Amino acid sequence: MENVIELPVRTLPVRTLMGSGPSEIDPRVLQALAQPPIGHLDPAFVGLMDEVKDLLRYAFQTENRLTFPVSGPGSAGMETCFTNLVEAGDKVVIARNGVFGQRMAEMATRLGAEVVTIDDEWGQPVDPQKLEAALESNPDTKVVGFVHAETSTGALSDARLLAGIAQRYGCVTVVDTVTSLTGSPLYVDDWGLDAVYSGAQKCLSCVPGIAPVTISDRALEKINQRQTPVSTWFHDIGLIDGYWSESSQRSYHHTAPVNSIFALAESLRLVKQEGLERAWERHREISQTLVMGLDRLGLEMMVDDASIRLPQLSVVNVPQGIDEAAVRSRLLQEDGIEIGAGLGPLAGKVWRIGLMGHSCRSENVERLLDALGRVLTDLPKVSSCSG
Amino acid sequence: MENVIELPVRTLPVRTLMGSGPSEIDPRVLQALAQPPIGHLDPAFVGLMDEVKDLLRYAFQTENRLTFPVSGPGSAGMETCFTNLVEAGDKVVIARNGVFGQRMAEMATRLGAEVVTIDDEWGQPVDPQKLEAALESNPDTKVVGFVHAETSTGALSDARLLAGIAQRYGCVTVVDTVTSLTGSPLYVDDWGLDAVYSGAQKCLSCVPGIAPVTISDRALEKINQRQTPVSTWFHDIGLIDGYWSESSQRSYHHTAPVNSIFALAESLRLVKQEGLERAWERHREISQTLVMGLDRLGLEMMVDDASIRLPQLSVVNVPQGIDEAAVRSRLLQEDGIEIGAGLGPLAGKVWRIGLMGHSCRSENVERLLDALGRVLTDLPKVSSCSG
Repeated sequence: MENVIELPVRTLPVRTLMGSGPSEIDPRVLQALAQPPIGHLDPAFVGLMDEVKDLLRYAFQTENRLTFPVSGPGSAGMETCFTNLVEAGDKVVIARNGVFGQRMAEMATRLGAEVVTIDDEWGQPVDPQKLEAALESNPDTKVVGFVHAETSTGALSDARLLAGIAQRYGCVTVVDTVTSLTGSPLYVDDWGLDAVYSGAQKCLSCVPGIAPVTISDRALEKINQRQTPVSTWFHDIGLIDGYWSESSQRSYHHTAPVNSIFALAESLRLVKQEGLERAWERHREISQTLVMGLDRLGLEMMVDDASIRLPQLSVVNVPQGIDEAAVRSRLLQEDGIEIGAGLGPLAGKVWRIGLMGHSCRSENVERLLDALGRVLTDLPKVSSCSG
Repeated sequence: MENVIELPVRTLPVRTLMGSGPSEIDPRVLQALAQPPIGHLDPAFVGLMDEVKDLLRYAFQTENRLTFPVSGPGSAGMETCFTNLVEAGDKVVIARNGVFGQRMAEMATRLGAEVVTIDDEWGQPVDPQKLEAALESNPDTKVVGFVHAETSTGALSDARLLAGIAQRYGCVTVVDTVTSLTGSPLYVDDWGLDAVYSGAQKCLSCVPGIAPVTISDRALEKINQRQTPVSTWFHDIGLIDGYWSESSQRSYHHTAPVNSIFALAESLRLVKQEGLERAWERHREISQTLVMGLDRLGLEMMVDDASIRLPQLSVVNVPQGIDEAAVRSRLLQEDGIEIGAGLGPLAGKVWRIGLMGHSCRSENVERLLDALGRVLTDLPKVSSCSG
């Protein structure tokens, strides 16, 4: 464009991303992202869509036909599942043990559902007995929602057990796997999960803003039996399916985020190449190194029980008298390392340290432990009353 | 990651994008897109968010505080405007003169609105007299929706005139500027437009999947007076505002698509650098060359009247006896040029040729005219009964 004066791209600081997401991105994924776009109805793009769906099925361990990336962040994935599955008046049981269970309850309430919540302490998994009791008292429940890996607390729930209970009571499940997908074992089909959503910017190490979703035939049957149309056009799975399905006559719904899908395809190829089991093992091993190092620094994990502690997200208690925001700020400014703050009732009380996907590397653990050790030694203690 | 075997990034075909979007992307925008992500609460990102909002205000020609990119494609922008402004039972007048006016009517209907439609022939602008008559007959109308530049027909409506009428009847307007933003004159504040959405992949020449939105104080007032909560959590402007507003305490809503916003910032800087008036002039001039060239090839524009014809999207009648899909396919396969098909009732009858943003260059016009001339001469005529 001859009218445009040369102007340099403004560069952003480079960060070591060890928060709750986005995680770091493999250079090959960034390279795929930056390929010039092609049309969203181009045969080459349609071929890529089919590849992405197959690779997502591998990541989710499912044969579900309806497996696709929602054109929006993880919470748009959550919205897609709830908006399609829940009708006004439906009774819905939601397990709350962190921010994202609470968000599920908010979405279901906005849709006019009769929401029954079961609560567990933050940092604890969802208690299967509470779910069983809630369904026994509410046999007319249609949908059960819970979070597999709570990003706000670092606790893992037993998705297989919970889905089994829901199924015995004839309910379909909505399951949040935003932080678990490719970081912790997840078997959508074997465990009988129905409507499952995730995000791309966690263990997949892709750009934020795209949300893998898979929908079982049982869930699809409930959607097909709706008495009322889905209240949003954008999230209507019937319409999205018309665009993403393998039918020869794909119908235009919205313009797909083609560059994000270039990147997603590449990040999923990397997952396939490494293999899910090896990826899970890598997250376990490297987080173990982190936990031991934190222990040497005198720091305690919020989730005591190692069997329910997420390897990809370690939630650490802030020691008494430490200004947690000052620590995060110094790590960012002096070392370029991002770690996450506590959310909701945990604000000011914990740090959330992510080792997700491409961020989950030994050198990142070493850099963080070094920097954290220095900052903690260095930092003036604040008086305990403000701690 | 030592476990990963080297695998090459699969390259996609390079296309000359002259369809209805995505348009081509300036290499500087692709370079910005591919910068390693930083956290969505990182101070450097928060600074970028403020810059993006300022640049969007320039592009929209508005002072609206609430001006931000929705984390989704253009239709998510549409959904954001309707979901927040329309309550069940509200009377809404929608002008339909193409696919996107029809989509507005569908969204409003799903929200439980009482929808009154006014219809104009495809290829014609919205008739202000019909709007006036509809509002006179329906004085309890709350919201008026119309499309500024219809992407399905290439016709421009007089947004200033239509908004003026709506305002006289005490209505707020929802205006689709997906294809007009930075390609045709648009003055949100001067024209009194209320809830205005666009897409990034048209004249902004950014990646698809991000939707600029601006909301006037009048519209915000209507939203604040809602009797019922917004039915979706993801599109709730109150929550989005808490994340995008300048308040010192930004509250987390969802993880912003940070890489797409890197790209959007760069594409908006290019718009600012060129200047809106020069960008509009460039679209006018170069499309004039295209129209003259098409005329020499014996092709006719669907929109006769040059004064309402979009420079950034030329809709061309397919000549009698020509297999339009075969032409598009040969352009794509032999020359790597994408042009668009007709949508809805125009399927098979028109081609849509985009000259949007970075795609709007003389060399693209020359390449297309050359290729189209050759393909049309070359192509066997099909019998008129199948034409």
